[in-house]
Amino acid sequence: MTSSLSSPVSYVRPAVDAALARFVQEHRARLLEIGAELAPAADALEAMLTGGKRLRPAFCFWGWRGAGGTDVPEIFTAAASLELLQACALIHDDVIDNSDTRRGLPSTHRRIAGLHRDSGWSGAAEEFGRGAAILIGDLCLAWSDEMYQGSGLPAEALAAGRRPFDAMRTEVMAGQYLDTLEQVRDGEAVEAALRVMDYKSAKYTVERPLHLGAALAGRYDDLAPVYTAYGRPLGLAFQLRDDLLGVFGDPERTGKPAGDDLREGKRTVLVAETLARAGAADAAEFRRRLGDPDLSAETIAWMGGLAEDSGALAACERRIDDHVAQATEALESDLIAPEARSALADLIVAATARKF
Amino acid sequence: MTSSLSSPVSYVRPAVDAALARFVQEHRARLLEIGAELAPAADALEAMLTGGKRLRPAFCFWGWRGAGGTDVPEIFTAAASLELLQACALIHDDVIDNSDTRRGLPSTHRRIAGLHRDSGWSGAAEEFGRGAAILIGDLCLAWSDEMYQGSGLPAEALAAGRRPFDAMRTEVMAGQYLDTLEQVRDGEAVEAALRVMDYKSAKYTVERPLHLGAALAGRYDDLAPVYTAYGRPLGLAFQLRDDLLGVFGDPERTGKPAGDDLREGKRTVLVAETLARAGAADAAEFRRRLGDPDLSAETIAWMGGLAEDSGALAACERRIDDHVAQATEALESDLIAPEARSALADLIVAATARKF
Repeated sequence: MTSSLSSPVSYVRPAVDAALARFVQEHRARLLEIGAELAPAADALEAMLTGGKRLRPAFCFWGWRGAGGTDVPEIFTAAASLELLQACALIHDDVIDNSDTRRGLPSTHRRIAGLHRDSGWSGAAEEFGRGAAILIGDLCLAWSDEMYQGSGLPAEALAAGRRPFDAMRTEVMAGQYLDTLEQVRDGEAVEAALRVMDYKSAKYTVERPLHLGAALAGRYDDLAPVYTAYGRPLGLAFQLRDDLLGVFGDPERTGKPAGDDLREGKRTVLVAETLARAGAADAAEFRRRLGDPDLSAETIAWMGGLAEDSGALAACERRIDDHVAQATEALESDLIAPEARSALADLIVAATARKF
Repeated sequence: MTSSLSSPVSYVRPAVDAALARFVQEHRARLLEIGAELAPAADALEAMLTGGKRLRPAFCFWGWRGAGGTDVPEIFTAAASLELLQACALIHDDVIDNSDTRRGLPSTHRRIAGLHRDSGWSGAAEEFGRGAAILIGDLCLAWSDEMYQGSGLPAEALAAGRRPFDAMRTEVMAGQYLDTLEQVRDGEAVEAALRVMDYKSAKYTVERPLHLGAALAGRYDDLAPVYTAYGRPLGLAFQLRDDLLGVFGDPERTGKPAGDDLREGKRTVLVAETLARAGAADAAEFRRRLGDPDLSAETIAWMGGLAEDSGALAACERRIDDHVAQATEALESDLIAPEARSALADLIVAATARKF
């Protein structure tokens, strides 16, 4: 493991990847004992785990270090369990949103639908792919808490960690439900978009993983408020940046087609700000286009242009700046161990930097 | 709680229901704190939990009692957590199989699709219902191990119970995957149908819940083989009975339309036996009809008639009788506490009795 703190994510990554590889290899063997035909399910699950930025394990680990924890192997395993939860969330989200790709590769249900077609099986390939992806996501979710409970940390620490661990699962599922609901309700309120972002992203990606690290180190009570003051604004800034990338990002770097969020009709803060700020005719046109799965590149460019010209893009950048400032200020707390404080400062940059 | 042992399921039911009601009420409140719009999701989840025979908690409880455990409240909570796992399995199965009903009521995804239509929301109601049902199932799955870990049993007991608890989750998901796969592969082998039944039903419904009860009581090592010898044949007999009910059962009593398994194209042992035993022309006709969602009552009656005339029904009844005899014999082990032995004998009758 690198001892450099220059990138707090790369510091965590090798041990997290190794823990995941061990766990998945062992569980693949169990699946194959049940039936050799389960190999494609194991492959799909493994493929979903090899990508990913490992942000949640990183926040969990630095939350632990900030609470005085040391680099024991068990904490990397407990932190890695969050990647299995995230794999479930992504696999199921892609089914729910009918997304064809994830990180530049076919989404799980598309991958298994391809297997169905290539094998010449009967029935509808799409339906089989969807069903299989639901089950593969379920496996990830079940294996996530199996990995957490089996991490080797003391029972008392694991029990203390259940509060944030359980909360984050309920919150991300509730947030995803509200997100889907906003889409079908044609929601346009900035506040509603912010609430979805709070549960689906800020708490799930940053705040709760930090809380988990603190709780595992026996420091939930004093550190949770500090980590909330840092983590929620940072999580919001992270998601705002992600939403901007979803419209303005370079597909080569984001791994998904430009404008996919607009095709899906995602009710992001950028969309809400655009609808609130654009002139009535433009807003009506934008509204009419939003959620059309067949949007042309030209229309997407026009929608992005309107987001920019209306001042919505600038408003989102201002929100990001404000949130970053809040997160930075929260780091002044001397309750956080100094080395972790510097890593958490680096994570602000890593999570919110402009990449387009 | 009744002290009568005349029905080992009714003995367990009130305490299991009460534990579930407490847990769900508390978690509904958390969902509503996140957003009042989550109420229909909580309602759907609760509706799924109010039905159900509580067979898995009953086997878990009697597995515990057979291992010398006593009627402490914590065991009922731990046992009840299996109902949340089962709720996830049913909600997701209904999405995967496109089932319209469950226990005589609309399935979860149909229920939420109805809410979408009644609310006049935009987009496809079916798609929204499906997405919401995936998330509600995920909540059930996450809450299942939260309830288990929070049952109040000692940490050491919970850790010992993780082995069967984790195994049963992997097994039921793998079994369901293989079941779906058999359908699209037009599988006709009796052996393949038996394997699906083993993982999806025998281990999941009977063997693993019994193992869990034994492990929680610190008796996994000596009792697991005994419970396997009793539980696997009983689980197979239970599922064979269920498959017969799926074709010959009274819809009033089974809660699903007669012949639904045939419309879905389920590759049951009854189907495999029918195809193996019927004459070539009849088998071809049966094969052609199987999995047609629009099968008429007349055709279903013809298919049932063929299953009967070919000797497939009698073969299944013989299998049930054999498995029941094996389970009964396994109960002779004096490792099982006497009161539990008598309850487990009653459970054989409850799980496999002819109901049509």
